[in-house]
Amino acid sequence: MICTETGWKALPAAWKAAADGAVAVVLTTRRIRRLHGEAVAKVLRRVVSTIRWYLLPEGEESKSLAQVERCYAQLTQWGVDRHTVLVTLGGGVVNDLGGFVAATYLRGIPWVAVPTTLVAQLDSAIGGKVGVNMPEGKNLVGTFYQPRLTYCNVTSLETLPQARLREGLIEALKCGLLVDRSLVSLVTQDDVADHLPAIIRKTIRAKLRFVEGDVTDQRGRRAMLNLGHTVGHALEQLGRYRTWTHGAAVGAGLVTAARLSRQWDLCNERTVDCVRQAVAQLRQPTELPQLSRSAWGSLLAGEKKRVAETIHYIALRRPTDPCIYPISRSQLAHALSRLTK
Amino acid sequence: MICTETGWKALPAAWKAAADGAVAVVLTTRRIRRLHGEAVAKVLRRVVSTIRWYLLPEGEESKSLAQVERCYAQLTQWGVDRHTVLVTLGGGVVNDLGGFVAATYLRGIPWVAVPTTLVAQLDSAIGGKVGVNMPEGKNLVGTFYQPRLTYCNVTSLETLPQARLREGLIEALKCGLLVDRSLVSLVTQDDVADHLPAIIRKTIRAKLRFVEGDVTDQRGRRAMLNLGHTVGHALEQLGRYRTWTHGAAVGAGLVTAARLSRQWDLCNERTVDCVRQAVAQLRQPTELPQLSRSAWGSLLAGEKKRVAETIHYIALRRPTDPCIYPISRSQLAHALSRLTK
Repeated sequence: MICTETGWKALPAAWKAAADGAVAVVLTTRRIRRLHGEAVAKVLRRVVSTIRWYLLPEGEESKSLAQVERCYAQLTQWGVDRHTVLVTLGGGVVNDLGGFVAATYLRGIPWVAVPTTLVAQLDSAIGGKVGVNMPEGKNLVGTFYQPRLTYCNVTSLETLPQARLREGLIEALKCGLLVDRSLVSLVTQDDVADHLPAIIRKTIRAKLRFVEGDVTDQRGRRAMLNLGHTVGHALEQLGRYRTWTHGAAVGAGLVTAARLSRQWDLCNERTVDCVRQAVAQLRQPTELPQLSRSAWGSLLAGEKKRVAETIHYIALRRPTDPCIYPISRSQLAHALSRLTK
Repeated sequence: MICTETGWKALPAAWKAAADGAVAVVLTTRRIRRLHGEAVAKVLRRVVSTIRWYLLPEGEESKSLAQVERCYAQLTQWGVDRHTVLVTLGGGVVNDLGGFVAATYLRGIPWVAVPTTLVAQLDSAIGGKVGVNMPEGKNLVGTFYQPRLTYCNVTSLETLPQARLREGLIEALKCGLLVDRSLVSLVTQDDVADHLPAIIRKTIRAKLRFVEGDVTDQRGRRAMLNLGHTVGHALEQLGRYRTWTHGAAVGAGLVTAARLSRQWDLCNERTVDCVRQAVAQLRQPTELPQLSRSAWGSLLAGEKKRVAETIHYIALRRPTDPCIYPISRSQLAHALSRLTK
């Protein structure tokens, strides 16, 4: 069940319909709890008898197996059972890690996702991909697990800095480039903040079109959502998940996908311009750092959508017409190293 | 796909039909590799181009998150992708841990289970329950994941010590008590070794009847398979997974289930005798250690099939007629402490 609401007031009814546990463990960070904790607790108390808080340290470094293990230990100490609901309140890190904990503790406990950043509302809380990072690569460990309820409160984005909002819009832009031209226009409007409810609904709808019928990412259809992400993940890894935000990395990844598609004669220059202008409008980087072929090669080794040495790179023929372009890891590394020459 | 065969020769055809990867990573122990490694590799080489070996230390202590993490790191170093097949060759520990690694590495890679102990052939490789232990309890972390292929070679049990064979037959006895009286007779025959193929097939069939339609253990039906396991897991935990083997613990758990069912007036004395005699015939313990009510209480706290303080204990009305008997943790602890007085 997915709700896009303006406010917290619909949460109790949604909870009753989708999760209905009497005990809630809320996984969040100290900062998010300060911003939204009281408001969420106030409405939750109407439907649950106990609320416990597990505070995760801020930052992508928390998305580790060590942190997962600390979570398990705390849940055990609290005597959490299969009817306790794990609520993830926060951004991508909180939802990805918390979803993995919910998926694997006691072989699965009910999960309610309450994403409070645009990236999380559009991406990590939709589609059931949960997991953590390894030192060798992002999201290398994980599984597929669906939240009983995803509750997106658009007003919770009001506390989000403009820069993080723009990062989040990159995910909407990606979905627009895949299936919905109106989204591409919407995210580049000057008054984008006024269109957030529409943007969120359209993006979720676009994403579900790829996820449905391919929940476990087996059939290639869902792979389309990887547009911009092959290079995006490589950049995040390059900056050890600090220098490049997810939005910035995927922004540069989208422009790269368009430029490579042009090189491979799949699209025309107008498509490249369209993507570059949209990413620039969202003030995300459009250029890649200068790296050698071998540096790109090692960064791409962590790519999950790899079959032996072949990467299923997602290219664009034009907006709303993506395709899978199988390419060897070394060829892609070569092409990427030449883009910055 | 589940195959019960006498020998390894059918493995390549089953592999082609169910898994069909060109690279195999075989997770096993040094001892099992010495016993079966060469024979398995010989037939596998007909269908795969590369075989890599990951050797796990022997023993239940290996079934830990730390070991899972070491596995992930090795898979990353080998450049394992989503078309590499993870083969688990061994007993319960190898299959439970390896299945969890297969389920969570890159959000799931193909898994072929080759159980070489009777316990594993009857239990851990069927039904998709995978996971590891926490210091606080057995199998507290895990998920549901189905092997593409489960290949049971009955002749691989020939190298199994008689004592381990008898432990494994406890699982068959449990399934017999749940649905199939002929199994109860078969496992207590003097020439039981000659009936192993029939016992394995009947037990798997019985188990699948409970698993099908309730793969993720939500509907109570699958919970029946927990007969003898609530107390069994408590005993294993009591002995820190060293003193009590799984078979011995579940054996004592089955007798306990019958005795408590008698106490609760659910069954007659003949049912208790039937269970006690069968467990004694398999030379497993029929008595519980003397423990206080509070000691039982803490051991039962780790029970996964617990809803707040209520345990869904599986009782017996008579052989092939089990039922769920909801009881509070403290009441069950009290009843158990009194059984040994």
